[in-house]
Amino acid sequence: MTDAQDLMRRLHVKNDSKIVLLVSDGLGGLPKEPGGKTELETAKTPNLDAVARRGVSGLSLPVLPGITPGSGPGHLGLFGYDPLKYEIGRGVLEALGIDFDLGPNDVAIRGNFCSVDDAGKITDRRAGRIGSDIGKKLVEKLDKITIPGVEVFVKPVKEYRFVVVFRGEGLGGDVEDTDPQRTGVPPLDPQPRNEASKRTAEICKTFIEKAREVLKNDHPANLLTLRGIAKKPDIPTFEEIYGTKAAALAVYPMYRGLARLVSMDVLDAGQTLADQMAKLKQVWNDYDFFFIHFKYTDSTGEDGNFDAKVKRTEELDAAIPRITELDPTVLIVTGDHSTPSKLKSHSWHSVPIVLSAETARFDACESFGESECLRGGLGQFEAKYLMPLAMAHAGKLDKFGA
Amino acid sequence: MTDAQDLMRRLHVKNDSKIVLLVSDGLGGLPKEPGGKTELETAKTPNLDAVARRGVSGLSLPVLPGITPGSGPGHLGLFGYDPLKYEIGRGVLEALGIDFDLGPNDVAIRGNFCSVDDAGKITDRRAGRIGSDIGKKLVEKLDKITIPGVEVFVKPVKEYRFVVVFRGEGLGGDVEDTDPQRTGVPPLDPQPRNEASKRTAEICKTFIEKAREVLKNDHPANLLTLRGIAKKPDIPTFEEIYGTKAAALAVYPMYRGLARLVSMDVLDAGQTLADQMAKLKQVWNDYDFFFIHFKYTDSTGEDGNFDAKVKRTEELDAAIPRITELDPTVLIVTGDHSTPSKLKSHSWHSVPIVLSAETARFDACESFGESECLRGGLGQFEAKYLMPLAMAHAGKLDKFGA
Repeated sequence: MTDAQDLMRRLHVKNDSKIVLLVSDGLGGLPKEPGGKTELETAKTPNLDAVARRGVSGLSLPVLPGITPGSGPGHLGLFGYDPLKYEIGRGVLEALGIDFDLGPNDVAIRGNFCSVDDAGKITDRRAGRIGSDIGKKLVEKLDKITIPGVEVFVKPVKEYRFVVVFRGEGLGGDVEDTDPQRTGVPPLDPQPRNEASKRTAEICKTFIEKAREVLKNDHPANLLTLRGIAKKPDIPTFEEIYGTKAAALAVYPMYRGLARLVSMDVLDAGQTLADQMAKLKQVWNDYDFFFIHFKYTDSTGEDGNFDAKVKRTEELDAAIPRITELDPTVLIVTGDHSTPSKLKSHSWHSVPIVLSAETARFDACESFGESECLRGGLGQFEAKYLMPLAMAHAGKLDKFGA
Repeated sequence: MTDAQDLMRRLHVKNDSKIVLLVSDGLGGLPKEPGGKTELETAKTPNLDAVARRGVSGLSLPVLPGITPGSGPGHLGLFGYDPLKYEIGRGVLEALGIDFDLGPNDVAIRGNFCSVDDAGKITDRRAGRIGSDIGKKLVEKLDKITIPGVEVFVKPVKEYRFVVVFRGEGLGGDVEDTDPQRTGVPPLDPQPRNEASKRTAEICKTFIEKAREVLKNDHPANLLTLRGIAKKPDIPTFEEIYGTKAAALAVYPMYRGLARLVSMDVLDAGQTLADQMAKLKQVWNDYDFFFIHFKYTDSTGEDGNFDAKVKRTEELDAAIPRITELDPTVLIVTGDHSTPSKLKSHSWHSVPIVLSAETARFDACESFGESECLRGGLGQFEAKYLMPLAMAHAGKLDKFGA
């Protein structure tokens, strides 16, 4: 049956209006105790509060109630792709994030260097967090590994992280992670989840054995684990669905990869929020949709650092005028999921959202925060409906039916 | 998978309770500016406010967030038919609205007279809005057109509007409109959207050429455009799904047509709201479901006339006692979509709804309006769930499962 994305494909119209989607990663939070305020509510955010006063607020459910998303499903939802329809492996995201041009015969894998003892048991799942320079040298050694019948690519990401790609006909993409998620045990054997992935699992096994030999003298990075083993899904482009020319302004590889997956133009956005804002202004006339990603409300949440998350939120708030001075038709500020510092992890809690546009049905929200959003005019809705709302408020959608 | 409508079919029971669904077309609106009131909130509506105080309120999404519906999807949703499952062409609606008995081999089309200059370019898409008397005479001429292999019917609707039906075996119903939606260009050629509709497009072309000859001396109505070319969908009856005997009290052809599409009894409801109310009282004992349609909150919204929409809303409010004095088991007042005068068009914004019934979980709403509805007990929900709510509150639904 017709879904929201089908409707977008059918109903979109092109006009000069501009949409800015500012994603503050892991934005939603939790108060420390009943009656308390969340990180966002604690932060002094005069600019976001002003956006809330002249816009309409709500809360988005990244996937479904109770479901905690990873960055992939979190962003796909925001981009209007049903995250239950398009599942994207971590390996694919990592590969896209380093500009690796994945093809239909590629199996992509996220690799982590790890430390193992003489008995082969993991002592450190991140190999003492070796620097990127060391990681890069080790990756170069791994990249020389050959396996009959497939091409092998190994590329550095950052520190102890890298990407492995196996290219070959008929390789399935469903193999379990080898990372046991704890120390004191050896890495797991790669297990295929289906018949089509048996050969892929065998190739993984061969690769691991060869890597064990290559890395044997490189303690603390003397072995590796393979995670998020997956193939790239067949996914329609953002432009095909929305008819917009979309630019992604993201610093971290993962989010650049997610934008590239839906064929946004991934621009060089520098390393800081200021760089991103400068780039936004520079390319303002060249696009009509802008995805801007801010990482640090998530990483501080993951660190369990309430105060740091508050501070990062205030940093984001300070950048808002750089966007509003460009006068976007629609400005949306939200997150891809919640990352409450209280939980030190992504969570399932609904995510604050504010949408500012002339065509909005203004509500009574006086500031931007979880409690205020709860009485916002957009209500609580699945994140996949955010893009339809953005498109509607930008006048980019025709009427459905006569 | 089982959907809400399947459940209605399985769970409905017959009883003496009566449901009134009063649809104020395009009811939802927008404030002119942040902090302002919508049309509905501006109107003095003591009777609707009283219904809100003794009932439960909410907001309905006609189709999905961000989707602006036409009248067809808007009403289908209210009738409990998923508008994404049942798509209905404009031509079909127009034909149903003039009591034309559409069969499975019929392609229905909405025709508009238009004015063209000597070069064949449109100068007026509505032929100077000729009166119904002139339109009728011209339609009689068109009705004499014959095309080999198909039966041709041309029937007047109102003013410059008419219905064309081609009846014949194997005619597809997917042909593009010929109305270019602007002046200064000739009408478009009828283009088939699929192989099955090629012959239909050819028939349309032949009809247009013959009409050009017939109408050549009838300026300002010296040509026509064809829109909403479509066949009737296969749709279950209202009675089959809900077990109710339903009466439709609508003045405008479109809404009578929509009611007829789901096999409601479409009664002669006169020309005014007073006529409709008199009819309601007259047939009160003959039915257990009443669909009453009020057009003018939409037409004033489309005109961009905030004050007129307010006045029409007050007119509707004044009629409420005529319904409540009949003591319906369930009274619902809502719209099929929003038509904010600020936007001069249908919109995607959620639609105020109030449901009054002894079995309702009363909420704290003190009046009927968008802001109050936002804190209503029904929350925000897709319009297709309104009928299940109506049926439940009327005691017309069995328990699901043991």
